[in-house]
Amino acid sequence: MGFQGLLQSSVNLKPSLLQVQQYVPGVIRVVPNRILSLHTTRSWDFLQVKPQIVAGILSKSHSGIGTIIGVMDTGIWPESESFKDKGMEKFPSRWKGICQEGEGFNRSHCNRKIIGARWYVKGYEAEFGKLALSDGVEFLSPRDASGHGTHTSSTASGTLVENANFRGLAQGLARGGAPSSWLAIYKVCWASGDCSSADLLAAFDDAIFDGVDVLSVSLGSPPPLSPYVDDALAIGSFHAVTRGISVVCSAGNSGPYSQSVINTAPWVITVAASTIDREFPTVITLGNNQTVVGQSFYTGRQVNKFHSIVYGQDIAATDVDENSAGSCDLETLNATLAKGKVVLCFQSRSQRSATIASNSVLKVQGAGVIFAQFPTKDVSCPWTFPCVQVDFEAGTSLLTYMAASRKPVVKFSFSKTVVGQQLAPEVAYFSSRGPSSLSPSVLKPDIAAPGVDILASWSPASSSKLLDSPQTKASPLNFKLASGTSMSCPHVSGIVALLKGIHPTWSPAAIKSALVTTASVKDEYGENTVAEGAPHKQADPFDYGGGHVDPNKALAPGLIYDMEISDYVCFLYAMGYNSTAISSMTRVHTPCHKSAKFLVNLNLPSITIPELKQQLTVSRTVTNVGPINSVYTARVQAPAGTYVSVKPSILSFNSTIQKQKFKVTFRSQLKIQGRYSFGNLYWEDGIHVVKIPLIVRIVINNYFYSET
Amino acid sequence: MGFQGLLQSSVNLKPSLLQVQQYVPGVIRVVPNRILSLHTTRSWDFLQVKPQIVAGILSKSHSGIGTIIGVMDTGIWPESESFKDKGMEKFPSRWKGICQEGEGFNRSHCNRKIIGARWYVKGYEAEFGKLALSDGVEFLSPRDASGHGTHTSSTASGTLVENANFRGLAQGLARGGAPSSWLAIYKVCWASGDCSSADLLAAFDDAIFDGVDVLSVSLGSPPPLSPYVDDALAIGSFHAVTRGISVVCSAGNSGPYSQSVINTAPWVITVAASTIDREFPTVITLGNNQTVVGQSFYTGRQVNKFHSIVYGQDIAATDVDENSAGSCDLETLNATLAKGKVVLCFQSRSQRSATIASNSVLKVQGAGVIFAQFPTKDVSCPWTFPCVQVDFEAGTSLLTYMAASRKPVVKFSFSKTVVGQQLAPEVAYFSSRGPSSLSPSVLKPDIAAPGVDILASWSPASSSKLLDSPQTKASPLNFKLASGTSMSCPHVSGIVALLKGIHPTWSPAAIKSALVTTASVKDEYGENTVAEGAPHKQADPFDYGGGHVDPNKALAPGLIYDMEISDYVCFLYAMGYNSTAISSMTRVHTPCHKSAKFLVNLNLPSITIPELKQQLTVSRTVTNVGPINSVYTARVQAPAGTYVSVKPSILSFNSTIQKQKFKVTFRSQLKIQGRYSFGNLYWEDGIHVVKIPLIVRIVINNYFYSET
Repeated sequence: MGFQGLLQSSVNLKPSLLQVQQYVPGVIRVVPNRILSLHTTRSWDFLQVKPQIVAGILSKSHSGIGTIIGVMDTGIWPESESFKDKGMEKFPSRWKGICQEGEGFNRSHCNRKIIGARWYVKGYEAEFGKLALSDGVEFLSPRDASGHGTHTSSTASGTLVENANFRGLAQGLARGGAPSSWLAIYKVCWASGDCSSADLLAAFDDAIFDGVDVLSVSLGSPPPLSPYVDDALAIGSFHAVTRGISVVCSAGNSGPYSQSVINTAPWVITVAASTIDREFPTVITLGNNQTVVGQSFYTGRQVNKFHSIVYGQDIAATDVDENSAGSCDLETLNATLAKGKVVLCFQSRSQRSATIASNSVLKVQGAGVIFAQFPTKDVSCPWTFPCVQVDFEAGTSLLTYMAASRKPVVKFSFSKTVVGQQLAPEVAYFSSRGPSSLSPSVLKPDIAAPGVDILASWSPASSSKLLDSPQTKASPLNFKLASGTSMSCPHVSGIVALLKGIHPTWSPAAIKSALVTTASVKDEYGENTVAEGAPHKQADPFDYGGGHVDPNKALAPGLIYDMEISDYVCFLYAMGYNSTAISSMTRVHTPCHKSAKFLVNLNLPSITIPELKQQLTVSRTVTNVGPINSVYTARVQAPAGTYVSVKPSILSFNSTIQKQKFKVTFRSQLKIQGRYSFGNLYWEDGIHVVKIPLIVRIVINNYFYSET
Repeated sequence: MGFQGLLQSSVNLKPSLLQVQQYVPGVIRVVPNRILSLHTTRSWDFLQVKPQIVAGILSKSHSGIGTIIGVMDTGIWPESESFKDKGMEKFPSRWKGICQEGEGFNRSHCNRKIIGARWYVKGYEAEFGKLALSDGVEFLSPRDASGHGTHTSSTASGTLVENANFRGLAQGLARGGAPSSWLAIYKVCWASGDCSSADLLAAFDDAIFDGVDVLSVSLGSPPPLSPYVDDALAIGSFHAVTRGISVVCSAGNSGPYSQSVINTAPWVITVAASTIDREFPTVITLGNNQTVVGQSFYTGRQVNKFHSIVYGQDIAATDVDENSAGSCDLETLNATLAKGKVVLCFQSRSQRSATIASNSVLKVQGAGVIFAQFPTKDVSCPWTFPCVQVDFEAGTSLLTYMAASRKPVVKFSFSKTVVGQQLAPEVAYFSSRGPSSLSPSVLKPDIAAPGVDILASWSPASSSKLLDSPQTKASPLNFKLASGTSMSCPHVSGIVALLKGIHPTWSPAAIKSALVTTASVKDEYGENTVAEGAPHKQADPFDYGGGHVDPNKALAPGLIYDMEISDYVCFLYAMGYNSTAISSMTRVHTPCHKSAKFLVNLNLPSITIPELKQQLTVSRTVTNVGPINSVYTARVQAPAGTYVSVKPSILSFNSTIQKQKFKVTFRSQLKIQGRYSFGNLYWEDGIHVVKIPLIVRIVINNYFYSET
């Protein structure tokens, strides 16, 4: 690994480096220079964040006027319509940010919307060497060569743009969550998708200094997770949160496997991805007039007439395993037999990607791809090639048709945009799931927000790193449909900015609590929310935390589960990290003698007990942010296999009593090594419903789990 | 593909072949010679199939005396204790089976337990050429070189064997479901794991001729599924079922993805795999005395002392991607840095196998492997190497320990067998899930039975194709712990034999109905059964059909949903297959003019409506098999989003009325493209509860799904 004054792998740490640490002022601690990566993959209407709602969050906050959203990402494309500064005020006097120039970016590219822009490359170059510009487009400046940073920035903060669309799809009014907020850009990631942790730490320092209100951070390290004291995002966000800045992160796209969630520090808001009620169906017509419907983003003309269809497995190249050809893996298809035809491919465990299948078929000059896979709502086909994704049932009925026809043919219709006809929201298949593999008593993710097929601004300089096809030469994209927890994160960042506008004194913990306790667990039709997965099931807190964000309810949560800096510090001690590491990270020297027991007593808007042996009592403190005189009554849905009692079960607030503490006792009814089961604790005053999830796993002894 | 008089790929069918068909007597139809594969991967006590239960299934059936179970698999190891014929009667006069000799197998290897044995290789050789005996052990005879056939045969029919164990684990009394039943062996599969469909068809013909009562078929073709008229297993099983022989199949091991289930013909019983309450925890002790618990089958001495531990990612070989090394993929580890150490590996999307990791670490002379993966109950580590499987949380805490220690070390304790402390049953992660991708209105799987870490007989000739390690040279196995729907299938076969002994006149449909309507959806603790998956959730009919098999209840189901041959024939017409193909398959010439509407009216013990537009009425007919004078009342749990009504809602039976028909009307409450939702219909007379699942997916129009 490369080495600078700051950096080396923590496993190989040599004593001499520790001495270097002391010589370099401002260096807090030597942490591994790890490369983080970006997460990619109508929504504001779906969230009811619209001006038409009387006393809704958008109007009450005046669309986020006066707030500053910092975005740590691949930079920005300043010419995008989403960043026009019409009607914006000049930045406030408290703002200390700068407009850092570079390639293709000078002071004129900042304006009254983009009030700050910085870029970071030293950490990246220490790790990888000089940025290789020959690999593709890149700018040594805040200018975005990828599109990702432009997309997330416009999702959080973009101004209103009419007739935005992605090649004719999803046409409508594009806007960000807080369209009147100011934007500050911190380009810590490069078009390769890599972001160095040293750069990230430096960016956090600058953002704090500059004076942002919210930080939107759609990036992270893949599992396994590092200790919080070693993780740049955990360290930097800790500093920001202790200064009152809310930090919002993506949960990761390694779903749907348990324990895949990342960015699990208790002081950040970790956002899962959910769907909205919009889809892009494409009709496939067979030679016998049957139709099969799939999804795609394909809007080209190429396959709007009948083509022969073949199955990948039947056109395997010489010496290629039939199964690989069946999934249209790279270099598995016989060019002569594929040319000019539509190829049907079946997803397999070793080849799961519609993009790879498309690449493979494109290379043998096939006319198009039908990719049969297990059903998910996000469109997996690349938009640069005629590719339609169908489920296994549809794929099998195509095979049946083909087996029964002498000359099977298909044609594609153009993809359409359909709104309001699909069950939503649902947790997206790819969204990473809890529990946290690092600190399972801290529920993660915290909340879900739209992250599937989201339309937002893009960078026209972005090359479609996917396919080198005729379609790629089409006009550069100003807007793009993208999926990922990268997209859901800035949704929450925008909402946080709106909340801060209305409640400027709320701590980051208070804001998180407001979002979590008011989140929704029902879909638009009043049914329990579905979580995509293998297979699809009812969602639980490990899929979406408190639930799907409900911005208008988060305005007035009634009660808040608040936290202070000392709580976060005690958390680090309870995790068992050593004092030196903790002091480095926290920049204070107040030790906190907490045992692991403290972990379940962290004042989160959730209670998670990874190992309930027979009985356990935890405490929580709530702060009244509603009417001064309020009386709340507890209501419990106990997790299966437990008895739960709350004491006291009635909390009264008045002008002298704004905080109340209560205890929740869990008793296990079973004597087994159990599974996590879920319940809820509600505090209700007749107007507000303050809900927190209860999550318990019963164990007999530490038979299966670590003892600390 | 190879060609014999019978065989060619249906896609390339040339007219001249059809003529050949007419010239070869006894050839029904030309079907593709497809290679099918085997499925692998305390249980009778867990199922309450024990003699101590007064009036239980085992005593009532006299342990299956008089029944003949046919097993289509890799053959048998006749010397196994499970096939001793003490106390067995000579085969009945109706039996026409033979004892077919061959390599290492002569007439003396059959006895009063193994009353028939046949073997098939012509189809295999037509496909692959001569059986390559240099690849490993094999016998051109019914003798089992794999172990798989011996395992399934002993599970269904094995006699009592005391002190059975797998290298000291799972020690106890081993037996089959019907220990007093006769066994007939049909070796259609070879140790390579491949089974030719031509051989399978021939075996079905012979089994029918010989006179078996039940056929246990733990094999199948991976998806995508072929039309039933083209699939050897569907065709052969159809013939068997129309002769009154129950055919039981495995559901496949491609779970947990939706639409992965195979062997979905409505006339067979398709069995999912579930866990029992037995586990094999292995304690890992760290250098700081912390412990972490995982699972393994390791019983060797090698790592019962402290060894250094390293993380795969930190010992990557030159030029190897860190991520590949992190999962200990093949050839990714630096031999010098791994030698003599325990290597911690994290499962990744591209490298998910503990076996590959073990192979990889063994090759660089590592001392052992700790494989961190998402949590599943089945033991994924190979038994031939010191390998312990842990979940991501445990793996992460190991990393944290390693990061904080100068010289991190671990030691393994020996694996133990623990009974009665884990939640069970649960549907196994790998068990394939519905709906059927070929005929979604036919609920599959039908039922779940134990298929995780099942102890049964094995073949001592089997080479551990896994690893060439010192442990492999250990004494050959007489018993083995294996997982798979291959194991759950013979559990049901054994139960079917017991049922047939008690109810010899019941049709295969009646037997299936009895199993399905009495199956259990609760675990041992009265909680809703969990289905492992990504992530783990509450089980639904697509995981386990009617539920987990309850043999003692299946004895007396009260009512039966019966079916006749004509129903199966009409099903084939309703599927849209052409008459010639159907006639070939069914060997009759009675056409059936049914439309696709018939599919939801098939008299199955379940109702599945893949596309409910607004309203639909289906009918079912039940036959009374309980007390002659019975009155049943309907009770409905409607699937979410629907109203359901039953007419009539009371059914009376007496000496003249043994069958009753009723109608179930479904009305959709929503106007969306929905998800499948689940409910139940119960018929209750105060003693019997006859439950069938109701499964509905609401659609607005055929927007997403095929129109036929």
